[in-house]
Amino acid sequence: MENIEIMGLVAAVLTTYSIVPQVYKTWSNKSTKDISLTMYLAMFLGVVLWLIYGIYHDSIPMILANFITAVLLFVMVVLKLKYK
Amino acid sequence: MENIEIMGLVAAVLTTYSIVPQVYKTWSNKSTKDISLTMYLAMFLGVVLWLIYGIYHDSIPMILANFITAVLLFVMVVLKLKYK
Repeated sequence: MENIEIMGLVAAVLTTYSIVPQVYKTWSNKSTKDISLTMYLAMFLGVVLWLIYGIYHDSIPMILANFITAVLLFVMVVLKLKYK
Repeated sequence: MENIEIMGLVAAVLTTYSIVPQVYKTWSNKSTKDISLTMYLAMFLGVVLWLIYGIYHDSIPMILANFITAVLLFVMVVLKLKYK
């Protein structure tokens, strides 16, 4: 694999992983006062569109990364609605 | 432009735009208790790598979207460090 493609893979892992510490924090503290629901709704919708885009282009990395990110963002939307 | 490419464009606009309401909320409320610094640091680093990836591949949409997203995420990191 070319170095630039490895960098793309690291980028995908980082942006997907990034939501995990936020989910953990929100899950533990049960507080979402400072969190914007609009951000998570817009990002979720955007990532679902990236997922469809990845499916259309048969891009396994795009499908994997965006599917996991969409699930994590959906969990954040649920947590935000649960712990207002 | 093909429909699927328009969908990719909408996806890029949505994921980039999504950070704006969070920046606005944090800027207004001056409170970041519920926000994970790790999330914004990891996402910022990931998006900077996507930006370099986009520059390498001469992809104007990737460069534009990831540059704006990186700036917005950087603002969130600064706000998080300022309003602990």
